[in-house]
Amino acid sequence: MEIDRSLYIEGTLHRATSGNLSVPRFFGKIALEEAVGSTFWDAYGTLPATQEIAGTNGLAVSLDFAQDIASRLNDVPKRLDSMDQSGIGYVIVSLTSPGIEGVFDKANATDLATKVNDEIYANYVQPYPDRFGFFAAVAMQDPAAAAKELERAVKDLGAKGALINGYSNIGSPANYTIQYLDDEACEPFWAKVAELNVPVYLHPRTPPVDQQVLYGNGKYPLLAQAAYGFGVETGGHALRLMLSGLFDRYPNIQIILGHAAEALPFLVHRTDNRLSTGKSGSGGPYKKSMKYYLRNNFYATLAGIRRLSTVLNTIEEMGEDRVMFSVDYPYESNEDASDWFDYVEGLSSATKEKLAWKNAVRVLNITAGLKSYQTDSEFL
Amino acid sequence: MEIDRSLYIEGTLHRATSGNLSVPRFFGKIALEEAVGSTFWDAYGTLPATQEIAGTNGLAVSLDFAQDIASRLNDVPKRLDSMDQSGIGYVIVSLTSPGIEGVFDKANATDLATKVNDEIYANYVQPYPDRFGFFAAVAMQDPAAAAKELERAVKDLGAKGALINGYSNIGSPANYTIQYLDDEACEPFWAKVAELNVPVYLHPRTPPVDQQVLYGNGKYPLLAQAAYGFGVETGGHALRLMLSGLFDRYPNIQIILGHAAEALPFLVHRTDNRLSTGKSGSGGPYKKSMKYYLRNNFYATLAGIRRLSTVLNTIEEMGEDRVMFSVDYPYESNEDASDWFDYVEGLSSATKEKLAWKNAVRVLNITAGLKSYQTDSEFL
Amino acid sequence: MEIDRSLYIEGTLHRATSGNLSVPRFFGKIALEEAVGSTFWDAYGTLPATQEIAGTNGLAVSLDFAQDIASRLNDVPKRLDSMDQSGIGYVIVSLTSPGIEGVFDKANATDLATKVNDEIYANYVQPYPDRFGFFAAVAMQDPAAAAKELERAVKDLGAKGALINGYSNIGSPANYTIQYLDDEACEPFWAKVAELNVPVYLHPRTPPVDQQVLYGNGKYPLLAQAAYGFGVETGGHALRLMLSGLFDRYPNIQIILGHAAEALPFLVHRTDNRLSTGKSGSGGPYKKSMKYYLRNNFYATLAGIRRLSTVLNTIEEMGEDRVMFSVDYPYESNEDASDWFDYVEGLSSATKEKLAWKNAVRVLNITAGLKSYQTDSEFL
Amino acid sequence: MEIDRSLYIEGTLHRATSGNLSVPRFFGKIALEEAVGSTFWDAYGTLPATQEIAGTNGLAVSLDFAQDIASRLNDVPKRLDSMDQSGIGYVIVSLTSPGIEGVFDKANATDLATKVNDEIYANYVQPYPDRFGFFAAVAMQDPAAAAKELERAVKDLGAKGALINGYSNIGSPANYTIQYLDDEACEPFWAKVAELNVPVYLHPRTPPVDQQVLYGNGKYPLLAQAAYGFGVETGGHALRLMLSGLFDRYPNIQIILGHAAEALPFLVHRTDNRLSTGKSGSGGPYKKSMKYYLRNNFYATLAGIRRLSTVLNTIEEMGEDRVMFSVDYPYESNEDASDWFDYVEGLSSATKEKLAWKNAVRVLNITAGLKSYQTDSEFL
Repeated sequence: MEIDRSLYIEGTLHRATSGNLSVPRFFGKIALEEAVGSTFWDAYGTLPATQEIAGTNGLAVSLDFAQDIASRLNDVPKRLDSMDQSGIGYVIVSLTSPGIEGVFDKANATDLATKVNDEIYANYVQPYPDRFGFFAAVAMQDPAAAAKELERAVKDLGAKGALINGYSNIGSPANYTIQYLDDEACEPFWAKVAELNVPVYLHPRTPPVDQQVLYGNGKYPLLAQAAYGFGVETGGHALRLMLSGLFDRYPNIQIILGHAAEALPFLVHRTDNRLSTGKSGSGGPYKKSMKYYLRNNFYATLAGIRRLSTVLNTIEEMGEDRVMFSVDYPYESNEDASDWFDYVEGLSSATKEKLAWKNAVRVLNITAGLKSYQTDSEFL
Repeated sequence: MEIDRSLYIEGTLHRATSGNLSVPRFFGKIALEEAVGSTFWDAYGTLPATQEIAGTNGLAVSLDFAQDIASRLNDVPKRLDSMDQSGIGYVIVSLTSPGIEGVFDKANATDLATKVNDEIYANYVQPYPDRFGFFAAVAMQDPAAAAKELERAVKDLGAKGALINGYSNIGSPANYTIQYLDDEACEPFWAKVAELNVPVYLHPRTPPVDQQVLYGNGKYPLLAQAAYGFGVETGGHALRLMLSGLFDRYPNIQIILGHAAEALPFLVHRTDNRLSTGKSGSGGPYKKSMKYYLRNNFYATLAGIRRLSTVLNTIEEMGEDRVMFSVDYPYESNEDASDWFDYVEGLSSATKEKLAWKNAVRVLNITAGLKSYQTDSEFL
Repeated sequence: MEIDRSLYIEGTLHRATSGNLSVPRFFGKIALEEAVGSTFWDAYGTLPATQEIAGTNGLAVSLDFAQDIASRLNDVPKRLDSMDQSGIGYVIVSLTSPGIEGVFDKANATDLATKVNDEIYANYVQPYPDRFGFFAAVAMQDPAAAAKELERAVKDLGAKGALINGYSNIGSPANYTIQYLDDEACEPFWAKVAELNVPVYLHPRTPPVDQQVLYGNGKYPLLAQAAYGFGVETGGHALRLMLSGLFDRYPNIQIILGHAAEALPFLVHRTDNRLSTGKSGSGGPYKKSMKYYLRNNFYATLAGIRRLSTVLNTIEEMGEDRVMFSVDYPYESNEDASDWFDYVEGLSSATKEKLAWKNAVRVLNITAGLKSYQTDSEFL
Repeated sequence: MEIDRSLYIEGTLHRATSGNLSVPRFFGKIALEEAVGSTFWDAYGTLPATQEIAGTNGLAVSLDFAQDIASRLNDVPKRLDSMDQSGIGYVIVSLTSPGIEGVFDKANATDLATKVNDEIYANYVQPYPDRFGFFAAVAMQDPAAAAKELERAVKDLGAKGALINGYSNIGSPANYTIQYLDDEACEPFWAKVAELNVPVYLHPRTPPVDQQVLYGNGKYPLLAQAAYGFGVETGGHALRLMLSGLFDRYPNIQIILGHAAEALPFLVHRTDNRLSTGKSGSGGPYKKSMKYYLRNNFYATLAGIRRLSTVLNTIEEMGEDRVMFSVDYPYESNEDASDWFDYVEGLSSATKEKLAWKNAVRVLNITAGLKSYQTDSEFL
């Protein structure tokens, strides 16, 4: 890219009618919470993506928004064009929420995970190795099978880890149980995660109706849940993992949370204070503080976050080496996310480089031929 | 207070064995989320305070902690001594959680509210007008009666507003409904709040079992709820008020939230982003952004918060004129809260003065003979 | 101003080619360090403004820059148009550096100050009372006369205070002394300032050649001085006022410093630390800490500052009630300064309102018919 | 170190009379601006250290302070004891200001540098390789000789780089010139620095009398200079290096500045703005922005800095990988510096680790057997 250095060495004051700011584009960013669909989706009876996720049911979401999502979820050229326009060099894709987790039948779920992983690999990673990696789908309805599929995806397809959409339904639509990841049944999966030493992205899905903060007797629809309830449910899920002692048994396990770690950076200090008033062991078999786990076993992405104050709170609690840019495309806009990130002040240039791509390269062992730089970065 | 000015004009370097920092005590602080009990409590069949609140049931909480709380809730001299030791000049007391809200029978609830308000006035405000104010208890089970009692408390007893512990039970222990403050039935109460122009403190209580984030089939007891679930339930309750259009109907209504506004400062920007994808009106009859309501209709206290990053996030979203020191005594320690607040760097002296007492004086119209100053503040 | 609320209530994601950000314009801003020329300038033998100030001598400055300044210094319609374009409602103008301070002869200096004040009043304040106020020029070469002229300017012309360009030359170009404002001779002036209770803006001028940091045997010309030396010389001048005990004798005197208080917020803590190693009284007759004076006797403007980290440092040391927006037009651009200020994140909305206009209204007792608001501020 | 984990898992609220905070000591810190004396000092006619440095002449400094410094400069056991008490594991020592730079005669200066380096090596590094490293003294009066001595010190004695106290006197006390490091004569030295790839610490010395900001006709003595003038003179010296194009000719050269980079983080953005109004090349032969050099060719230490706002400003402009803890012992107190650093909030744990020791290990290639950790860091 050609840079007009004279602008900096011999500048002039901008005297024209103003009101627009030009963004010094940061090229080569990496994004990690990027959703794709699957042709196998409907066949296995899971809810279609466009119903459960993101408050996008017919009643709440605007039609423009829903149609826009539908036109983008599986359109690879449109995705690549948007990445190019916004300076995103490489993304980790994964099956959109609620994913495999919403498939009630164990065998179907396991079968679907394999098919989805093969399909994502074939459509994204294989043809565009310098633009796409992926997080594997796994069927937590059968944790041993999930462990096996994770190993296959990592070793055979180069998956960078797994992405799990919260709790899993097990049974049938008429008669099912809900399983969170701190359930003892999940042990074989976590043992494999620790062995493979790959991260698990814990992504929100619509909370069970009974547990919906904001439900309000149905007064506030799915949209309000998406805006607030998804995050706090996922934050609570992460705390359950901490309380369960998982990170004492497997200190190398790393969980990635979106949305600036779902408010845990804001709340973790008070959470520890309150837990410290309990009897030893009464809150769970955990051995260290929630703060310790947050800064040693978790990464945060900025999917859905465009706010300096939130990012600074997150960095201060987790450290700038544990925070990574992301978008949540197509539910969020690559252009909006990049315009915000590339322009925002209040983060040092070195911090921006880490959030934009350096941390992701290190955490996910990305070896694609990336070229990352910020336009005019020599002068800014 | 005598200040050794020579220390500052002709100083010496500290060469002794170190490891302790002396706190420049900020005197005259005001605290707003300070709990007291009532002799009328058991008679009305509500849960005793020490069961529901703060995870202090017999199974989870440490015995030392529970006994300490029990010995302090109603001990006025002990409370005053602790305030003196920690530089707290004036506190607003209120009936401890779950308060009147846990009384199932409407008539009993209404009767109890009156008795509690008279008792608090007689025990705290009347004998110590320069040390105590109070927030009235109100029985939201009967909103018209609550409006009436609020008026009496404000006009006759000088109450500074009301404190409400989340949702209210209505009916009987065997058969009851749950009413949140956005319920249309609450309208007469809110009309009176707007007319009297006094703030309402929205305090957490244990979330309904069905809605407990972290419940985990009973795996994680009340303590973990207190540490995380109370806050996000109360944050969700505040969002329901915003979504309901309450602040469009009554723009002067002011809600006080504890615990740094229950993570809303961290989450509000993303909440607005998600809501903006909805059809107009689909998320509720609200007219402005959640951000707008947060910074125009809410105050935050630092009850339970001792963390700079959380405070900075809160100030950046709400403004330093809307954040106030508090403790949550006796569930938190006056000494711990004051040592943290009085010492912490990262807030300007002017900001500290506002948080310590200036904002509270303005918001609550406090006219008691306060004397507020920070030791050595001329030099720090 | 018409606001499209549908944008916020029913939004769509921005999917177009990006790279430009639209600034939500903050209207009604007030600026305080705004320079104008005078027709009396050359007649009194002072250096023309375009020689000494801002490194704009013929050797260093770009021709475009110099011509642009020359075309703007005295062009009122161009100034008003630029203010309108950038949302600046009201400015305090003052005679450009080096001002009266560079006039060697006492009588001439005194005479010139009167003429300049009358001229500025006639050209700016009288015809545009809702757009312009002014800081009076005073001849510190004769402090008693300066006191008299200040009183006249404040009482008869409505001056908001005085602006002084650093040290004053006294004598003749061939044989002169340099007088800083901590000189005992200045006492009559300071007594009058305290009596009138108006602020004094301490503005940089080119440091005396002997004292130029960066002089480098002439290697680095005036431009480099303007970039660094002006500020640290002015910061040193402010420290001399503190060390002299001025603010102990007249605690109500208020000094305004441009450029985020010339790095004193960054340095003041270390300055106090070092001074505390001295014998009592050895550093001057001052009685309190430099930090104390900075936050009780100084205001900072953001003239020339477009950097969040610098602003945050300034606010943390001085408090957000002591920091005010400014530009330094025409040496800086109204449009650049406003685009930066209006857009930047990291300052609460309440903070921005104070910096933009509320603080200036309070400090300078501005009663002009201001209309201040931020476009879309209800939603941002 | 034994940690009482029960404190965290089963805590109690602190109810006792308070006012003291216990510091969680960070062990294994590394400090870089630590002064030692030399027995060869007086023999070569330089000013004794206790006269020029730090405002410690007989008139200004308190006697207690001066005697304390004198008793510590060369007392190794006292130094080690103080390091142990304050959790400092390893320090880089160097000859105290004004060092070799104040020796007027070239040959004497060169000879003295060699003797001082041998002496420091023998007294500190050789007997305590796990506690001490050193920056070499060099005689810039003869740059070729300085290059030679630097190479010897680095290769034979393991010096970590050089420390230079500002400008050098050349000639005799009666007739001398002053040479800054941007002088063309220094080229051979800089070529060697680039070749050896070691950092140069640019340390303040008393500015030449003519150039003393705050001099005030002698009104404000050396102490006030030490408090403010030393820093801005050194900041100006650093800017001269940038303007000279040094870092374009030798992009790998790294300069370490004490005192949070002497306010350059606060001022650099405005400096670039002003320079951009100049003709291309008029400010010097530099090719990039001052900001670029600051964040690519400079490190900052916290010697003398105990203020969060200053540290945050520094980190935001330079990045947290370029800021390092230091003390300036014995002119500052190891205990004061460590109590502040170890306790202060507002920096993430990861940031603290980098500032405390990780950055220094990387930048200076320290291989001593360090053991670095923060007490209770698992829980904090």
